[in-house]
Parts: sequence; C-alpha cells; structure tokens
Amino acid sequence: MRVLGVDPGLTRCGVGVVEGVAGRPLTMIGVGVVRTPADAELSHRLLAVEQGIEEWLDEHRPEFVAVERVFSQHNVRTVMGTAQASAVAMLCAARRGIPVALHTPSEVKAAVTGSGRADKAQVGAMVTRLLRLAAPPKPADAADALALAICHIWRAPAQNRLQQAVARHTAHATKGRTA
Amino acid sequence: MRVLGVDPGLTRCGVGVVEGVAGRPLTMIGVGVVRTPADAELSHRLLAVEQGIEEWLDEHRPEFVAVERVFSQHNVRTVMGTAQASAVAMLCAARRGIPVALHTPSEVKAAVTGSGRADKAQVGAMVTRLLRLAAPPKPADAADALALAICHIWRAPAQNRLQQAVARHTAHATKGRTA
Repeated sequence: MRVLGVDPGLTRCGVGVVEGVAGRPLTMIGVGVVRTPADAELSHRLLAVEQGIEEWLDEHRPEFVAVERVFSQHNVRTVMGTAQASAVAMLCAARRGIPVALHTPSEVKAAVTGSGRADKAQVGAMVTRLLRLAAPPKPADAADALALAICHIWRAPAQNRLQQAVARHTAHATKGRTA
Repeated sequence: MRVLGVDPGLTRCGVGVVEGVAGRPLTMIGVGVVRTPADAELSHRLLAVEQGIEEWLDEHRPEFVAVERVFSQHNVRTVMGTAQASAVAMLCAARRGIPVALHTPSEVKAAVTGSGRADKAQVGAMVTRLLRLAAPPKPADAADALALAICHIWRAPAQNRLQQAVARHTAHATKGRTA
C-alpha cells in the first residue's frame, strides 16, 4: 500500500510518500514541502499548491491520500489557509479517483508515538526510527506528512480493504455494462 | 465588465453573473446554485463544487470572479466547508487566469443597500431592484452571489483597470518573448 500524506498549509504544505503494510517495516518513497510565497494572491497560492500536489501524484502514484483534518480552534488566520490548502489536496486526489482519508493531529501522534499529546520532536524521532532514516526530516511539516501516511497504513487496513473492494466491484460492474 | 459572484458553500454554493459598469444599469446574465449532497465524502463534494463552477465559467466567460471573504468567527463546522468551497472557486478562476476579488459580507451589504448590517431580505430586495428582476432570486445564496458581483462592479473599477492593465502588460511581455 502506497500512501501520500499531506500536512496542509499555504506557506509550507508537507508531503510524504510511504509504502508498506501494517505489521511490516515501512519504506519512505519520498518527502518534501510545497511552498507558496506569502505575498502572492490567495488564488495564486492555491494554484501553486495544486501544481505541487499534482506533481507528487504524477511522480508517486499513491493508492491513498491521507490529509490532516483541520480544526478551527487554532489560530484564526492560519486555519483558513490550512483548510483551503487541504481542500486543494483533497480535490486533486478526488479528481483521480484516489480515496482520501482524514486523520486528526492527535490520531497521528497516537499512531506513531503512542501518545496523542506527543510534541513535534517526538513525532520526528519516531518517524525517523520507523522509516529507518539517517536524520529527522526537516521541516516539521515534512515529518508530519510522513507521520500521516504511517498513521493511515496502520490505522485503516480494514477500512482500506473495504474501499478497495468497493472500487474493484464498481470497476467490475462498469466493465460488465460496457461489454 | 462581466463578473461571476460566488457565495461559497458545500451544501449550496450561490453563483450569479452580472454585466455592466458602475453608474449604468446592470444586467443579470445568469443565477443559480451548485449543490452537493451532505452525505457525500468531503473530497467528492469539493469535486462536485469544482465541476459546477467550471460549468459556470465555461458558459458565461466572466472577466472577474468575486468571492465572499470567509471569516472563522461564525459556526465552526460550517465555516470550514465554506472556506474549502471558496478555495475551489478561487482555484478554478486562477487556473484560467481570471482575476479573483474577495469582498466581506458587510462590504457587499453596504454596496447594495447602503448599510453593512442589512438583513437577507433587504439584500434580496435591492438585488431585485438593481437588476430589474420580477422577483427576488431564491435561495438567498443565489441573491448573495448576485450582490457580490454587483459589489465588485461598483467598488473596484479603479482596481479592475489596474489588474487589466497588468494582465495586458504581462500578455504583451510574454508575446514579445515568444516572437
């Protein structure tokens, strides 16, 4: 199972691709950050996020996209941009028929560290260990994107199998009608 | 000047196209609502909003898109969907190189009624009068989208001329490089 994790943001949108299955060692396929200039117009920043996500989807062809679920109790200005960047990531995936899963920050922290209240350093340390990296991915948004992908692989195997079965069934039914 | 106004929302996204210039009678070109089912997955709802907005852009070829600026002091659940739907509208416009303007609800109300605190009925009544319609557009989201377009035509003539000049200059410079 190959998952693209997206830690949404307008200034820095973390992206990380992890491959593997629950219970086996995981492999990092790629990690990076899509950046947009803070002084650009909002519509142009969203366009730049779209182009960045599209490039990651083109290059790595993930089967699932895991996006951080955004809450509005945080900083008011930041959260709107985060919500909008996450919308772009979800839209890019949906356009390609890739299933999208949302995970909350505490679900992600709990999945990789055992505690929903772990700090950034702890998440970075566990991501480094779990993916057998030489050093923690920088910036934190990149590490968070990998953590999201790991969380998805570990949390949702049953859910994923169901989604894939539905997708296969739908593809089969469609083929049946075409033939 | 032809403007597509967008009152963003996931359940109902109001869209309205108005043509005219400040100081002359305005003409309604079209009005409607893009709806997405509340029980669909968020990524699929965003995709449906994108398809709806694309259809309006294809059919009416606006020169400007005016979107309501979303604030997060409102209902927490609703505002995230609104922010995400507005991101999709901005993205669709930016992809086509159409300038996007954001106007706050009180700017829109003040533009069409003279008061930033006007209620929905007052906005609907003024939209009906200004566009010489037989009845107020329903639902309110549709009327709000028309009000946004009117607000943009009235508020931003100087700003629009500047944006168009920049666009012409950029197009000219690009042409110069290609030749």
